[in-house]
Amino acid sequence: MPDLEFLFNPRSVAIVGASSNPDSLANRNFIRPLLALGYQGRIYPVNPHSSEIMGLRAYARILDIPEEVDNVVCAIPAPLTPKLIEDCVRANAKAVTCYSAGFSETGEEEGLKLEKTMAEIARRGGVRIIGPNCLGVHHPKVGLTFEPNSSRDSGPVSFLSQSGGNARELILIATERGIRFSKGISYGNASDLNEADFVEYFAGDKDTKVIAAYIEGIKEPPRFLRTLAKGAAEKPVIILKGGKTGAGTRAVTSHTGALAGSRRVWDVLCRQANITQVGSLEELADDILAFTYLRPPRGRRVGIVGVGGGASVQAADDCEAAGLTVPLLPSGLIQAIREFTPQAGVGLGNPIDTSADVYWDPVLFAKTIRLVAGFGGVDVLFIVLGLIYAAKHKIGMVGEQIKALVEVGRETDKPVVVVLRTGGLIEAEQLACTVRAQCLEAGYPVYPSVRQATQAIAHLILYHENREQKGRQQSCETVR
Amino acid sequence: MPDLEFLFNPRSVAIVGASSNPDSLANRNFIRPLLALGYQGRIYPVNPHSSEIMGLRAYARILDIPEEVDNVVCAIPAPLTPKLIEDCVRANAKAVTCYSAGFSETGEEEGLKLEKTMAEIARRGGVRIIGPNCLGVHHPKVGLTFEPNSSRDSGPVSFLSQSGGNARELILIATERGIRFSKGISYGNASDLNEADFVEYFAGDKDTKVIAAYIEGIKEPPRFLRTLAKGAAEKPVIILKGGKTGAGTRAVTSHTGALAGSRRVWDVLCRQANITQVGSLEELADDILAFTYLRPPRGRRVGIVGVGGGASVQAADDCEAAGLTVPLLPSGLIQAIREFTPQAGVGLGNPIDTSADVYWDPVLFAKTIRLVAGFGGVDVLFIVLGLIYAAKHKIGMVGEQIKALVEVGRETDKPVVVVLRTGGLIEAEQLACTVRAQCLEAGYPVYPSVRQATQAIAHLILYHENREQKGRQQSCETVR
Repeated sequence: MPDLEFLFNPRSVAIVGASSNPDSLANRNFIRPLLALGYQGRIYPVNPHSSEIMGLRAYARILDIPEEVDNVVCAIPAPLTPKLIEDCVRANAKAVTCYSAGFSETGEEEGLKLEKTMAEIARRGGVRIIGPNCLGVHHPKVGLTFEPNSSRDSGPVSFLSQSGGNARELILIATERGIRFSKGISYGNASDLNEADFVEYFAGDKDTKVIAAYIEGIKEPPRFLRTLAKGAAEKPVIILKGGKTGAGTRAVTSHTGALAGSRRVWDVLCRQANITQVGSLEELADDILAFTYLRPPRGRRVGIVGVGGGASVQAADDCEAAGLTVPLLPSGLIQAIREFTPQAGVGLGNPIDTSADVYWDPVLFAKTIRLVAGFGGVDVLFIVLGLIYAAKHKIGMVGEQIKALVEVGRETDKPVVVVLRTGGLIEAEQLACTVRAQCLEAGYPVYPSVRQATQAIAHLILYHENREQKGRQQSCETVR
Repeated sequence: MPDLEFLFNPRSVAIVGASSNPDSLANRNFIRPLLALGYQGRIYPVNPHSSEIMGLRAYARILDIPEEVDNVVCAIPAPLTPKLIEDCVRANAKAVTCYSAGFSETGEEEGLKLEKTMAEIARRGGVRIIGPNCLGVHHPKVGLTFEPNSSRDSGPVSFLSQSGGNARELILIATERGIRFSKGISYGNASDLNEADFVEYFAGDKDTKVIAAYIEGIKEPPRFLRTLAKGAAEKPVIILKGGKTGAGTRAVTSHTGALAGSRRVWDVLCRQANITQVGSLEELADDILAFTYLRPPRGRRVGIVGVGGGASVQAADDCEAAGLTVPLLPSGLIQAIREFTPQAGVGLGNPIDTSADVYWDPVLFAKTIRLVAGFGGVDVLFIVLGLIYAAKHKIGMVGEQIKALVEVGRETDKPVVVVLRTGGLIEAEQLACTVRAQCLEAGYPVYPSVRQATQAIAHLILYHENREQKGRQQSCETVR
């Protein structure tokens, strides 16, 4: 495990290019977030024309700072960076997070040369570089971040992202959905520290239980693949790969100067290394939720409780399309549900499309879930609540339903997934927001559609199946 | 074209099973919606125990109503329906919309028999039946609906839905996204009038430009397929098919008693008939938006203007994965954009990941779009606005950007698609709501992700390509 302590637990951070304008990008991305999250180390704005910035004493040069700085954020024009790196070497700084862009990603001779020069000075001087063209470190536990709306709470997920924008959006999207991060890094062009270093670090980090990544290109393919396979053997690694098509590959080159590589080769490697792949940031959040909130289901058999005939058909189709199964409940169980469920217009075979009378009665709703949860033929429970009608018709009962669900959920050891179907309707989304916290607190991940839930759960099951299989193979090999 | 005037333009509607409790399902689904939308015909609640319901004079029996009723809504227990149908025959009613459930969808002998009996009485007596197990007619132009939150405005889309819940959700989801309906029908078990009748009617209806459908099973396969192919030759038909998997098929049977049929056969038939298939209600709304707001693009080449490196890579990948292309802009054009765009950290080759300075300046943003729109090598424009950062950091400029976009959009004859990326974040969704109306008014459909947009646009292009090809084949055959 590489020692990146100086990066994730710096005693001090300097921001070169901090400005007297509080809305400058350097201030917005680095000083304000540190103040917002209450960073415990020392913050040194560096600007030759100011003596105070955002209430902090500012210094003209890195060399004027009265201590050796662990992490220097570089937010000045690209052509000025080699000189800054030289100063950092002289000042015994440990790392430079190079926010500045205008390097290899421009595809032009000058930028390529500049990046090479900068990296070379740093290498020789013993300074590590993150970036250029990145946002750097996220470690909310110590108040270190580039996103002031980050949660201060820590969690089990660490991420690496070649894109700063994606890193920020992942933090915002995931936080709202109940995901908390241990650490994260936006590493841009990866001129020095690269994806292999971060995967290796997170794989060995005891606070990290799940590794999430947005990756455009690979700097050291053999080393990265070794690291990745080793990492994934210890904890789940979920990757969004940017640049899987011709146009995407071209966009990658002008974004971080990376070589995206062949899609086919990448897909094969991921399968071999038991890496989970997703297709968007939202899916990345979907999967992280499943991997952090749920114990692995014992199998693929889903019991679905919800309401609405069309919605039930869709839920069943979505489950089976994702490789899950929706077994028919035994007739005795259907009979037991029927005893308190009016018959007209409902299907109780699974999905359990219960009647409105039962659906809106917390006691009967809980009773239905309890019966399904008790059936040995299902491995995971999907509770599907349609919020579109409830929101538009101002039915305020949803909170009561969740309360009932939480009660029942405590009695079963099967994973429970909650789908709050909103159809993208703003009033339904608002209603979902108000009840999501209840679900998360009880340990149930929440999805806005059955389809999103099924993909995440299928990924979770597949990861653990593969892992077990590998475990068995290895013990066979040992026996031989 | 079947004459369904009595159904869509009834002079009077009776609701049998209306109740003195204003919150009863019959009142909520039928009387309240008619009052809310200002139905112009006469409304007759029927209940033997009330003389007035929701301010309307009520009648004890259908036979007591002082005129021949065009549409009788049946909201009484299933076993009582044969007697009601007999009364309707005697009272010369034209149609019965049977909301009641408990018929063939139960899978039980009694329900099957009841449905057969009811249909037989109606057939002999010359009364048409919609349903049972349905919500009936939606025709906002005359104030006829089962959903009180429907828009009163008419539009070019008509739908048929075997599921009442899906019909309602489609109305709510689609309305919020800017889709307006001409007519619609929720037709449940289809014991008499079925999917073929409605497709045929909408195909011949001059107010219907696009037909949308949720279908579980087919009552008269040969007739339906003929009708469908004929309908799709005249106007786009977009179908969500419920029951495409084993469990979905089983759910269909207990939902509307229908036989879902083979997925493979269905897929082949849709391809042959140039039917557009979607996988969810949200996708149905996505496609309707594209088919109603956009003229068919001349080709598949997309020009993408937005911001964010990672977001640009994702947009390019999503486009090509959906079969669209993202051509590299010519160097002269890139040079022209570069003249006013700071170079660092942006990619201008297409996607145009413009810098924040340009992005947040309406004049420069418009200038960028104008340059791309003027390039003959792109057929359709995607304007991708990331709202996650804007919403969280309270940047209120998005409205100005849309204004600038509308200005430029007027100058080009290329279809313009707006993506307001929200990542499901509630604050971003709220921001999207406030600016969506501006886009819709200018004629631009709005999507929450590039992926959703690409699928809809790819469907639109494919439909028109197939249609042209068929047209050419036919004219060849005529020549021969």
